[in-house]
Amino acid sequence: MTGTSAVPEHVRGLGRVHHVAVVVRDLDASLGFYRDTLGLEVDTVMPIPSDRVTIAFLPIGESKVELVSPTDDTTGVARFLESKGEGFHHVCFEVHDLAETLTRLAIDGVELIDTQPRKGAEGPVAFLHPRSCHGVLVELIEAPGGPAWDALGY
Amino acid sequence: MTGTSAVPEHVRGLGRVHHVAVVVRDLDASLGFYRDTLGLEVDTVMPIPSDRVTIAFLPIGESKVELVSPTDDTTGVARFLESKGEGFHHVCFEVHDLAETLTRLAIDGVELIDTQPRKGAEGPVAFLHPRSCHGVLVELIEAPGGPAWDALGY
Repeated sequence: MTGTSAVPEHVRGLGRVHHVAVVVRDLDASLGFYRDTLGLEVDTVMPIPSDRVTIAFLPIGESKVELVSPTDDTTGVARFLESKGEGFHHVCFEVHDLAETLTRLAIDGVELIDTQPRKGAEGPVAFLHPRSCHGVLVELIEAPGGPAWDALGY
Repeated sequence: MTGTSAVPEHVRGLGRVHHVAVVVRDLDASLGFYRDTLGLEVDTVMPIPSDRVTIAFLPIGESKVELVSPTDDTTGVARFLESKGEGFHHVCFEVHDLAETLTRLAIDGVELIDTQPRKGAEGPVAFLHPRSCHGVLVELIEAPGGPAWDALGY
């Protein structure tokens, strides 16, 4: 881990599991389990037309379960669903300074899907490739008040 | 959701994401990413001989990342690794009364892998079948002080 001791603490620290995302075929059917049977509350249900998905956020403690359902068959999420079926899609960790975190991860050899913060529904986000994360698609989101919020015009 | 309105609140409420579990081929190699590169602390590394795995818990906020590596090729976790490769294995939610929660879930038609609480490393646990959870292997763990702790002799 060459050089990590020189990395400022605020760049290293992960705050919390922001959400765990599950790809589902039918959002209403999945709410029948996660909301009605398991007993989670529903915070938000919203279409994300740019991503061709509809999502629901269900808070639990300081985290959320995100249900993601594709609205057509052209996207990566739709192909994931066709090839693998319903199930885990990604986990999202909160960081304090996303741009600096991405810089450090790139130096450490992590394969980045997004090399800089981009605008997500709940804040600046970036994805890391599962090849670098032992099979897990990892999303990072910047905590409210971080520098990328201003930079992306939230 | 027939009858859920009659279910006591303490049976319904999920407290937090207790952990997200990732199956990995080599525990040390995966710590190279999750601890050394991503910056998570390591709380525990321990063999679970009865399950033929070695696990590591890495706290993040009120949750943990659990890394699970099989120690031989005879277990379900080992077969998971061989057939699907490294990646998400299960998510664990905390509940207040595990036995009552399982009873209610069974009434609601959820397929239970464990029909009653069993002794886990960190408290009483039970798994729900992914067929009932939209592709996700869900583990439930009882919060400290719950009735199954006494019943299982912690």
